[in-house]
Amino acid sequence: MITMNNIMAKSFINPDFILTNDTAKHLYHDFAEKMPIIDYHCHLIPKMVAENKRFESIAQIWLMGDHYKWRAMRSNGVNERFCTGKDTTDWEKFEKWAETVPYTFRNPLYHWTHLELKTAFGIDKLLNPQTAREIYEECNDKIQNDPKFCPRGLMEFYNVETVCTTDDPVDTLEYHKAVAADKTMKTRMIPAWRPDKAMAVENPANFGDYVNKLSDVSGVSIRNFNDYIDAIQQRHDFFAANGCKLSDHGIEEFYAEDYTDAEVKDIFDKVMSGKKLTENEVLKFKSAMMYIFAVQDSEAGWAQQFHYGAIRDNNSKMFAKLGPDTGFDSIGEFNTAKAMSKFLNKLNMEDKLTRTILYTLNPCANEVIATMLGNFQGGEPGKIQFGSGWWFNDQKDGMERQMNALSVLGLLSRFVGMLTDSRSFLSYPRHEYFRRILCNILGNDVEKGLLPDDRELLGKMVEDISYNNARRYFKFY
Amino acid sequence: MITMNNIMAKSFINPDFILTNDTAKHLYHDFAEKMPIIDYHCHLIPKMVAENKRFESIAQIWLMGDHYKWRAMRSNGVNERFCTGKDTTDWEKFEKWAETVPYTFRNPLYHWTHLELKTAFGIDKLLNPQTAREIYEECNDKIQNDPKFCPRGLMEFYNVETVCTTDDPVDTLEYHKAVAADKTMKTRMIPAWRPDKAMAVENPANFGDYVNKLSDVSGVSIRNFNDYIDAIQQRHDFFAANGCKLSDHGIEEFYAEDYTDAEVKDIFDKVMSGKKLTENEVLKFKSAMMYIFAVQDSEAGWAQQFHYGAIRDNNSKMFAKLGPDTGFDSIGEFNTAKAMSKFLNKLNMEDKLTRTILYTLNPCANEVIATMLGNFQGGEPGKIQFGSGWWFNDQKDGMERQMNALSVLGLLSRFVGMLTDSRSFLSYPRHEYFRRILCNILGNDVEKGLLPDDRELLGKMVEDISYNNARRYFKFY
Amino acid sequence: MITMNNIMAKSFINPDFILTNDTAKHLYHDFAEKMPIIDYHCHLIPKMVAENKRFESIAQIWLMGDHYKWRAMRSNGVNERFCTGKDTTDWEKFEKWAETVPYTFRNPLYHWTHLELKTAFGIDKLLNPQTAREIYEECNDKIQNDPKFCPRGLMEFYNVETVCTTDDPVDTLEYHKAVAADKTMKTRMIPAWRPDKAMAVENPANFGDYVNKLSDVSGVSIRNFNDYIDAIQQRHDFFAANGCKLSDHGIEEFYAEDYTDAEVKDIFDKVMSGKKLTENEVLKFKSAMMYIFAVQDSEAGWAQQFHYGAIRDNNSKMFAKLGPDTGFDSIGEFNTAKAMSKFLNKLNMEDKLTRTILYTLNPCANEVIATMLGNFQGGEPGKIQFGSGWWFNDQKDGMERQMNALSVLGLLSRFVGMLTDSRSFLSYPRHEYFRRILCNILGNDVEKGLLPDDRELLGKMVEDISYNNARRYFKFY
Repeated sequence: MITMNNIMAKSFINPDFILTNDTAKHLYHDFAEKMPIIDYHCHLIPKMVAENKRFESIAQIWLMGDHYKWRAMRSNGVNERFCTGKDTTDWEKFEKWAETVPYTFRNPLYHWTHLELKTAFGIDKLLNPQTAREIYEECNDKIQNDPKFCPRGLMEFYNVETVCTTDDPVDTLEYHKAVAADKTMKTRMIPAWRPDKAMAVENPANFGDYVNKLSDVSGVSIRNFNDYIDAIQQRHDFFAANGCKLSDHGIEEFYAEDYTDAEVKDIFDKVMSGKKLTENEVLKFKSAMMYIFAVQDSEAGWAQQFHYGAIRDNNSKMFAKLGPDTGFDSIGEFNTAKAMSKFLNKLNMEDKLTRTILYTLNPCANEVIATMLGNFQGGEPGKIQFGSGWWFNDQKDGMERQMNALSVLGLLSRFVGMLTDSRSFLSYPRHEYFRRILCNILGNDVEKGLLPDDRELLGKMVEDISYNNARRYFKFY
Repeated sequence: MITMNNIMAKSFINPDFILTNDTAKHLYHDFAEKMPIIDYHCHLIPKMVAENKRFESIAQIWLMGDHYKWRAMRSNGVNERFCTGKDTTDWEKFEKWAETVPYTFRNPLYHWTHLELKTAFGIDKLLNPQTAREIYEECNDKIQNDPKFCPRGLMEFYNVETVCTTDDPVDTLEYHKAVAADKTMKTRMIPAWRPDKAMAVENPANFGDYVNKLSDVSGVSIRNFNDYIDAIQQRHDFFAANGCKLSDHGIEEFYAEDYTDAEVKDIFDKVMSGKKLTENEVLKFKSAMMYIFAVQDSEAGWAQQFHYGAIRDNNSKMFAKLGPDTGFDSIGEFNTAKAMSKFLNKLNMEDKLTRTILYTLNPCANEVIATMLGNFQGGEPGKIQFGSGWWFNDQKDGMERQMNALSVLGLLSRFVGMLTDSRSFLSYPRHEYFRRILCNILGNDVEKGLLPDDRELLGKMVEDISYNNARRYFKFY
Repeated sequence: MITMNNIMAKSFINPDFILTNDTAKHLYHDFAEKMPIIDYHCHLIPKMVAENKRFESIAQIWLMGDHYKWRAMRSNGVNERFCTGKDTTDWEKFEKWAETVPYTFRNPLYHWTHLELKTAFGIDKLLNPQTAREIYEECNDKIQNDPKFCPRGLMEFYNVETVCTTDDPVDTLEYHKAVAADKTMKTRMIPAWRPDKAMAVENPANFGDYVNKLSDVSGVSIRNFNDYIDAIQQRHDFFAANGCKLSDHGIEEFYAEDYTDAEVKDIFDKVMSGKKLTENEVLKFKSAMMYIFAVQDSEAGWAQQFHYGAIRDNNSKMFAKLGPDTGFDSIGEFNTAKAMSKFLNKLNMEDKLTRTILYTLNPCANEVIATMLGNFQGGEPGKIQFGSGWWFNDQKDGMERQMNALSVLGLLSRFVGMLTDSRSFLSYPRHEYFRRILCNILGNDVEKGLLPDDRELLGKMVEDISYNNARRYFKFY
């Protein structure tokens, strides 16, 4: 049956979605579309991949853990029970989401939702209260019966060549090992080193627990700061041995306070004795750890990523109920350019500055970062990178702003491009979304005469940013 | 006589002004245009409404008190005598304004001026030195002879259902009472609570005077901080009894310093003894007052508005001559996200966070605010709002940036929309201006395939943002 | 031979480059194009003009000293030898630049490169490894044989009426004198006063050396702060006598700390005794100097320029090798609005605020500056100016953002417009670039009905911003 909804959806997510001119269409369909995906930063759960988990419903994939959707639902007045509640069913949650979707006009969730329905499920309908039940059932039927909708099936379907998960130094990487040993797995899954907890000394008890875990897993008896760094280095080697090629750091700001080794050793002893550190001690410790992490990455030949600028867990009431990463984070304001420069400069002075990707959550720092890159480039193309629009900026406007800043202040051509940063196996269309936006930007420039109409050069540029640059940059293979 | 000027003006402010595509035109003419206006924040003088003041000239409406126009005139090199001088006539001032108008190309004043001439007076001519005299006379003739050009007439003409003025706690609200009692008044005029002076402790003498006034009007003898809060609460109740449903706070930054009740009581005693407070004491006092104000609003079921980020009275020489609000304010730079979060979180923890609208003067904080909302949403749609482009941002570019940030980081659909913030009865076309811009944004998205062409849903969205959302949100009726 | 490259280049930099609609084309070709250039801020070397230096190759003009190009080459992975090395030939450097050019798609360097090839050399080809050799030879042939490609020839060719260089107070201005005395010189070359070193007290030894030089050149024996200021005033008078009409100040932030004369005298004595100053002493000294400089400019009737917001010499390793201004600077983050206001207000209070141009490196401050202007306007049109997109912002996006902010928050009509800020005699097409962008902005507004189609008024506006405003503002003649 051809319904109005069908018609609308068909003209909505169509082959030329986002592509507003012929050059853009040509660049997307003839160059971007075919490139494999390297998803070099995501938050997938390795166990799900190892076990190739079969989901029961679209609600489980879409609404379990997706704080973007929870935020939209809360903003729409939906009761928390339908976001994170244990007393509501999958269908009830999905129904509330479907009610919210029409209110997400102009939000990336509206595009993501319909791109995922269209590309994975072949569903052209727009999701709303009228279509919710039939879409729910159609999706669930496929999810429950078609192996394409298991993690590995989706990765293959979306032509994902490599994914990098995000892993704590204390992680055993058992699922990574299992996947690496499994010859039937077509997508490569690689761990990425995220040692945030190893410098989270604000809470002595938590930090002590963490040090104990690290001691256990590394087999290093940690009596002092030197032991601590030895244990971390041991895990760094272990990650490297399991294919890790890059690190990732979630920081509020760049920490580049001066410190002495003796100070840092004393601070370590103090926090391990359970004493609360002063603000300045925390800053010195974090400055030391960031430097040590960076040196380790440099010596291992890894790339390092810095994600800065979030203020997290703003809602204490909900944090007490739900914990972190549940949709109560937002964009902070930090004047950290000088510290960022000092940090990078110190490493550069000592020839310890490895390939580095800088991500800002506040788009007002786009120009700061895009010009910071140029201070430390050299040796290889695009050594220092401006990371793709992150988190709240991972949408058309945010990605355009990031790419525009990089273009006019650096070299867009050398950009390593997109990553999903996602917890969901259905998020790969975000690469398609990014590539369409990229092609549209370039196509617009050509149409306006701002770029020469050299399809070969433009096509290569699109392929590079979609895939080749990342492939070369991360040295996965 | 058809002059070139007439022709140009006719093609300039025409029925499709700002609407660059068919969808936009449809959305504006079939949905937005007919909706009544709720002007929930303005600076109209209630006495003028109560007395339905008859103005003598367009200069009196346009140039008496409009610091936007004065700034433009000063920037154009016009002598201050023609802005605020007492020794120049209405015509002389108008003439200088008319000389300045052609130099305001691309400034919102150019659009506002011609929208007001066109919609209120039916004048299609462009204002400039050649047309100044005839426009002046035509306007004055209407202003002096047609009751439509009195405050109530203009409100009716522009389909204004409700206006909220901005009132100090010590205000007697006598004119609000008079208007409320007048059955012939079609527009509802409601006070809004603006207690800025009640926390302005920087100047002990002024603050002491204010406390005395508050004591007089409330009948509460104020001997200490508790009495002071009692008196404020008494006025809050009085405002509520007179229909008040929302507060408004003009602050530089968010104040969220920790304090004890004892400290605040001592600070109050100190300032009342005429002593200058330290910076930290001022901060603690303001932090306490903001919290108390917010609790009062929450308990009364009001909405609260925060306008932050201005640096005011930058020109001391002119301040000495003309006082505040005369065009010497500008956009400040404040990293206040963490304090904003702390303030809202404290209220939320104690279940005292009422509906809240956050306005930033510096558009660089658009993304900060648009993501702060999501931390505290829940219970009703759009409980925490990102206020429309304020003051310097109240223009096409500023409104588009505010709506774009809200769209991609929150739910534009739930936006309570526009307000004039104006001192003039001729400013209502700013609602038309806003609605045209909104429709144009949505129409552009449809044309580009970024939104499905669902006219019904889009139409409802336009009606909601134009009127329905505000009507529901403020609970005026 | 008509090659594909030729065709592409011809359709790339064509007469309507950047002009996307008929109004824009009309405004550019009938108004902007013919106006002379006043380049009121640049870094040309006066000696080269005086001697009318003949260059040997395009590499010498393009790649010697152009840190924009070096940054792009480093970002592209080019070895430093080909940027600043002494062991590589002109051709080798040019070849590496030609390899980099296709990777600068969307960067202003791509436009500048081809605009300069086209306008100066009549070369329509796109620069890339295939065309590098023939373009190199064609350019060099012209540079070596045609006097048009000497400094004076290029200035004449580009219709440059006046240039202001950037000169230290200790400069003898000998080349300015020579040029002024040379009746064959058609372009006027005027010095501009840049006394940055006169407040650079961070390094006592360098400052001491500077004071000695100043003493020598001024003939004033400098024993204390008063002598110091006398010497500076003497040089100020000397610059004025040599035609100087404006100053320029490169500052990180605005310095507006309170200080007493006695404090500043003591600070001067301390630094002259070779002692390191405290941070607060540096701040007080700079605050005093900025005030004194401003008063001197005001009394001489000069205009003053402030360029703020850079963080410089971020890469210590390269700084040690190459010194300053070699491509290792970037955009900083400074919340300096209040200090800027305090500084301007103090001058205004004392009737010592001269015509002032404010430039920000961080475009996030565009709105801060564009609204700061309005606080201190008066007496003449556009007395306080928002400077054109500076350095990293000197590109299409940056210039559009600057002009948009100025438009909606001030009077674009009164803008003094473009300057090259360049070290190269081939940079004058940046004025053409700016004018095309300006005309395109206005044309777009007309096409969208946002401005009336009054060609006469628009044409005058374009001519004013291109030339007339600067001519009136700087009072050179």
